[in-house]
Amino acid sequence: MPPETLPLPAPRLTPAQETSLIQAVRRAARAEILPRFRNLAAGQISQKSGPQDLVTEADTAAEALIARSVLQHFPNAVVLGEEAYAADPSLRDSAASAELAIIVDPVDGTWNFAHGVPLFGVILAATRYGRPVFGLLYDPITDDWITASEDGPAWQSEIAAPSKRLATSAGGALSALSGIAHVPLMPQDHQEAFAPVIPAFARLNSLRCSCHEYRLMAQGAVDFVLSGVLNPWDHAAGAFIATRAGGVARFLDGRDYDISVTEGYLLTAANETTWLTVRDVIAPGLSRDTT
Amino acid sequence: MPPETLPLPAPRLTPAQETSLIQAVRRAARAEILPRFRNLAAGQISQKSGPQDLVTEADTAAEALIARSVLQHFPNAVVLGEEAYAADPSLRDSAASAELAIIVDPVDGTWNFAHGVPLFGVILAATRYGRPVFGLLYDPITDDWITASEDGPAWQSEIAAPSKRLATSAGGALSALSGIAHVPLMPQDHQEAFAPVIPAFARLNSLRCSCHEYRLMAQGAVDFVLSGVLNPWDHAAGAFIATRAGGVARFLDGRDYDISVTEGYLLTAANETTWLTVRDVIAPGLSRDTT
Repeated sequence: MPPETLPLPAPRLTPAQETSLIQAVRRAARAEILPRFRNLAAGQISQKSGPQDLVTEADTAAEALIARSVLQHFPNAVVLGEEAYAADPSLRDSAASAELAIIVDPVDGTWNFAHGVPLFGVILAATRYGRPVFGLLYDPITDDWITASEDGPAWQSEIAAPSKRLATSAGGALSALSGIAHVPLMPQDHQEAFAPVIPAFARLNSLRCSCHEYRLMAQGAVDFVLSGVLNPWDHAAGAFIATRAGGVARFLDGRDYDISVTEGYLLTAANETTWLTVRDVIAPGLSRDTT
Repeated sequence: MPPETLPLPAPRLTPAQETSLIQAVRRAARAEILPRFRNLAAGQISQKSGPQDLVTEADTAAEALIARSVLQHFPNAVVLGEEAYAADPSLRDSAASAELAIIVDPVDGTWNFAHGVPLFGVILAATRYGRPVFGLLYDPITDDWITASEDGPAWQSEIAAPSKRLATSAGGALSALSGIAHVPLMPQDHQEAFAPVIPAFARLNSLRCSCHEYRLMAQGAVDFVLSGVLNPWDHAAGAFIATRAGGVARFLDGRDYDISVTEGYLLTAANETTWLTVRDVIAPGLSRDTT
């Protein structure tokens, strides 16, 4: 039986196609990612190869496995992985203009992975002409996944239990908001403009893992996610899932999320009011020219 | 065969006694903590009992199991658990003045645990008259543990592999330092005094889990940990282990770590130079009177 292929012009992904993507990710995690994480924890690292090499191996091998499976099911798709991008940066533009692109971060949370912290994930998004139409945030440790399609809500699923429908938080006043912000990735002058605002929030943090950050967002456990490094493999799935769970995902200048945008700040928030509340307090500092 | 008991006056814990503590923690994690974490992830929560109830159950049941095992091996010890303290706050003073106290945080990283984030731990410390003499930082997810005794280095261990000796980082210039700081737990005016300093560091973060934060410290993956909430179940083991891995653990006023201290800031750093570098930049703002 030939693999299911995507008819053109692209409709929504079918449930079977979405399942094929979820299964490709789960297989790659079991075969290529988790065994290397356990090796790392075991200290079974040879003298030549340090933790970073193991991560690279996990990245490369998992991305290759996922890409093969994706192309079986979607032979016309552009596959944009973090590793593939490193080899060919023009792939990002190809993906942004493609009718269907599948975007993969095979090991998101590299630093955690390399230091034995069990907080990493696999992120996969499908985009149509740069706009997400499917997102997947997979946690290899718990073997559960959060997904959303363009005409449905966000779900958290695992094999042995019924799926749970997710909703973003209700938000609230500024001093009650908890958020994620990638402060150390900002240019130094933006960090300095942003830092005095931090105590205005209930809590600001970063998990060094976009996958888990957007999972918390979709579950309503944090109220916003702010990032100025716009790699689509970090954000396309999570920002999209947040919108399907009731949130909004826009750049600070007001444009909707799109993978073609490479500069600016992406602010994903629980709802319109929260987006505006956060934007109003942070935008002045972050719109200054960097020097 | 009667359980091994601690002779008086207290010498260092014997290796067998340390093993009994490690095993008590591992058993509690398998029996009482991990099954509830998986329940949580599975969404198998009844309508009456939310995630927070599951955490409380995990806390209470794990602490009870660990306390029973501790008292079998150390019948004269004061056992100070987070749950026991909630029922009887005078227990903290009893522990601080005891020849031997065993201090337990049965589920450290409660918020993560409750939100399905696989980043939590079990912390256990032994103290003699308030000073740590043994520390254990256990990760139930990876089933590995970091320990230190008063006359040895810090080790990371698991069942199937040789133990790995740990060392704190080399530290460095201020702008190269990565640290953990519990900013949202500071009084508001300290947060405001502290925030402008944040961009001076390479990265400041919090994992909402002291166990993993001090694990990173002992592994040399972060350069310091700063906290103003001095619950001994959060800090006694980790601060001690850091010192055995080459670091220093002192309050900002210069006193060595002791569980009897309830006010001020504990700064644990990779070495003396790093401690002074961080202290010099943060102490002015944090020593102001709170209003």
